[in-house]
Amino acid sequence: MTAPHRIQALSLSREAPLADGIVEWWRARIDDRIVRPGIRLPSIRRFAADQRVSRHTVVEAYERLVELGYVEARRGSGFYVRARPVPAVRTARESAAPASRIDVAWLLRSMFRDLPYDRMPGGGLLPPDWLDSALIAESARSVARAAKRSWLSYGTPQGYVSLRQQLSLKLSAVEIPAEPEQIVTTAGVTHAIDLVARHFLEPGDAVFVDDPGWFVMFARFAMLGARVIGVPRGADGPNVDALRALLAAHRPKLFVLSSVLHNPTGTSMTATNAYAVLQLAEEHGVTLVEDDIYGDLSPDASSHAPARPAPVRLAAMDRRRRVIYIGGFSKTLAANLRVGYLVAPSDLVQPLTDQKLIGSLTTPEFGERVIARVLLERRYARHCAALRLKLEVARRAVVARLKKLGAHGYAADGQGIFLWADIGTDTNALATRLFDAGYLAAPGSLFSPTQLPSTWMRFNVASSQNPAMWKALQHARGSAA
Amino acid sequence: MTAPHRIQALSLSREAPLADGIVEWWRARIDDRIVRPGIRLPSIRRFAADQRVSRHTVVEAYERLVELGYVEARRGSGFYVRARPVPAVRTARESAAPASRIDVAWLLRSMFRDLPYDRMPGGGLLPPDWLDSALIAESARSVARAAKRSWLSYGTPQGYVSLRQQLSLKLSAVEIPAEPEQIVTTAGVTHAIDLVARHFLEPGDAVFVDDPGWFVMFARFAMLGARVIGVPRGADGPNVDALRALLAAHRPKLFVLSSVLHNPTGTSMTATNAYAVLQLAEEHGVTLVEDDIYGDLSPDASSHAPARPAPVRLAAMDRRRRVIYIGGFSKTLAANLRVGYLVAPSDLVQPLTDQKLIGSLTTPEFGERVIARVLLERRYARHCAALRLKLEVARRAVVARLKKLGAHGYAADGQGIFLWADIGTDTNALATRLFDAGYLAAPGSLFSPTQLPSTWMRFNVASSQNPAMWKALQHARGSAA
Repeated sequence: MTAPHRIQALSLSREAPLADGIVEWWRARIDDRIVRPGIRLPSIRRFAADQRVSRHTVVEAYERLVELGYVEARRGSGFYVRARPVPAVRTARESAAPASRIDVAWLLRSMFRDLPYDRMPGGGLLPPDWLDSALIAESARSVARAAKRSWLSYGTPQGYVSLRQQLSLKLSAVEIPAEPEQIVTTAGVTHAIDLVARHFLEPGDAVFVDDPGWFVMFARFAMLGARVIGVPRGADGPNVDALRALLAAHRPKLFVLSSVLHNPTGTSMTATNAYAVLQLAEEHGVTLVEDDIYGDLSPDASSHAPARPAPVRLAAMDRRRRVIYIGGFSKTLAANLRVGYLVAPSDLVQPLTDQKLIGSLTTPEFGERVIARVLLERRYARHCAALRLKLEVARRAVVARLKKLGAHGYAADGQGIFLWADIGTDTNALATRLFDAGYLAAPGSLFSPTQLPSTWMRFNVASSQNPAMWKALQHARGSAA
Repeated sequence: MTAPHRIQALSLSREAPLADGIVEWWRARIDDRIVRPGIRLPSIRRFAADQRVSRHTVVEAYERLVELGYVEARRGSGFYVRARPVPAVRTARESAAPASRIDVAWLLRSMFRDLPYDRMPGGGLLPPDWLDSALIAESARSVARAAKRSWLSYGTPQGYVSLRQQLSLKLSAVEIPAEPEQIVTTAGVTHAIDLVARHFLEPGDAVFVDDPGWFVMFARFAMLGARVIGVPRGADGPNVDALRALLAAHRPKLFVLSSVLHNPTGTSMTATNAYAVLQLAEEHGVTLVEDDIYGDLSPDASSHAPARPAPVRLAAMDRRRRVIYIGGFSKTLAANLRVGYLVAPSDLVQPLTDQKLIGSLTTPEFGERVIARVLLERRYARHCAALRLKLEVARRAVVARLKKLGAHGYAADGQGIFLWADIGTDTNALATRLFDAGYLAAPGSLFSPTQLPSTWMRFNVASSQNPAMWKALQHARGSAA
């Protein structure tokens, strides 16, 4: 995979001067909140190269956007979308999805529509019939029988202690040193990242993210007033040269990144890459936030697949307390239990726990007890091994479909739930057509902080097995071309 | 109750010039983060009157604080604590509670210490043996038996639909019009307030709160960079004259207040007061956030006590969509289920749901299903009626103890869980002594945005029935005097 996220050329009207076209194009996106306040525009050089226009034209357009109040320039740092008053009433209906409405909030809401899983190639979860409902139901029943009085008081701020002990054991198996006292439970990975962001970020602070990367984070950080800056992600992890250059230009508080089975590409950091990233973080005093929600689905984690090197976690390499490690069970066990956790260096445990207390007091113990029981009974490892096998079979089927479709390419090193593919056409338009046909797709634009149109698209291999969906995709692509 | 929150005189060193003393006094509090960034200092006039010093002295002191970078003056608005770099490592141990360490985070953490309930007169919950553990355990078991596959997927962003239907019925009984589509479930009232704050507040915005009021809110709003301004609370609700004057000086986005059984005073708004507050909110375009977590414990809500007027809710009076109503079940049923909710005008439902999604996706359905079942089976009303009777008996016992102790006064109109009493001595010092003796008290300073020392203290009447605690209190008071 050489170009994980190529930006599609703008379709500018050739009658108007080029700079005007660029201005209008950004204005529409900012007005529709497709690109949100705090997001950094691509650099003049990069935008000019991507769109094949002169730098002068981009300079002219960006300056006009500044005059219009849409964008602000920050010295030595770049151009950022400004906070603007939000329209009081949204005119678009929740369910409507014209091309201009495809944004993070739209995909998030759509993910919760009452669609069958085989109509959601863009969904983020495994279908329920892939998961072990009996395992969870059994554990839930025994927790409800046993924990008679536990529901009445708040519980423990850092989270249910038996779960933290089980997590400590689980993490030591992948060589991450984590005492139960260093672990804070959260209502899923999203909540964990939110706590870290609230502790570290103040308005105006820079935060680095994977580009492409997990879109909910971009919105969260931008809402906190942070400057959200994408670090290009390659097949072996963040691009180290680009990271070095960005670190020289900005002083980010955090770099939030995914180590194993990165969303959306499904690729994992190599040891060489992880070491280089960790060293740069140390040199520049940046805290790394390692999101490992998919790690348990890595085939390399299984002894059955020794062909590839074992997956690498930053937290296992970290000796200077630069890494906050985040994990959870929404993908592998049960999303509705909302159980995630973070592992932090000792001096950060207290302030992060305070953030949890002040935001929502404690997390409910029910889910934490259910997960603790599954881990205690040693049923988790076997369950994940079975999922890995099924995912590999499903991935092969999707790759075959993509070849037949004539896709331009895909992230060949990918594993896990997601497959990141270049469809060769604007996937925003494609997603809109699929939406009208009753399917939820995840266009590549959502996975970049700038949310520029893209020809890439994320497939959930487990929920992309429906022949009718592929037919609809082929049809939508034909009418888009 | 005429002076719900009198500020104790500073004990200034008489050798140093007065202004120096005031500067040092504020510096210490700001350095220790007892008073947090974003908090507004008392006005020069009020501080001078409270401390019996000349206005000139206060002006001098405040100006020096500005020069030192501790405080900033905002035109026509007052003096605010500035954001300052946080020390990287906290030196104080978590469990230590010297007088200077009594702050919101300290009380919050202490509330979760492993203390027996009869050692926590400052606690916020009813003791577990006051609650109906069988009711909850039974409901939890049947939910775990019935909901086999519900745990596997995310659930509904606005919350479990049956619970929202039950809430709609419950609210219509107190004349609050709330369609299920207007309700968003949350992980408790704290989470609900957090969502509203995140949607409305940007750094620098003003937010009004009750003074005294619920302390977790102050920290939350200040962390968001808001200016937190206290509105004096009287026995019949917010002081309307003071509110009018503050509205003229500031332009708050929100006024977060409690209508029925206000924490800490236990008093409720009268209809006259509620009407005046609502009118002022409409005139000034302020959104009212009505926190009604204690309302179900109001004796007036029961048909057995017709002597007083029925409690008044702003949401029941609201015709102009000025009110966001918030409730929950942590106080009356089971805190660990973490179930709360908000009712919002239709145009706010979508953005508040988006905030919920972006912060932690959905809330777990387990607790929502347990509560829905309790409401469906019509067992909640009888349970609350039983609690009200027990609380009245407990309150009488605490009043008798306070009289014997020689307390200066208490909020005589109070009802519900809390009793707000003037002990006649600095309750920060008192709380520290009680802490050393193994008791958790809630000193009055915590309930004011400025966290100035106070002679008032909040008692949880249910957990203040232990004679040994009263002995320890008497002893601590003796050594404080």
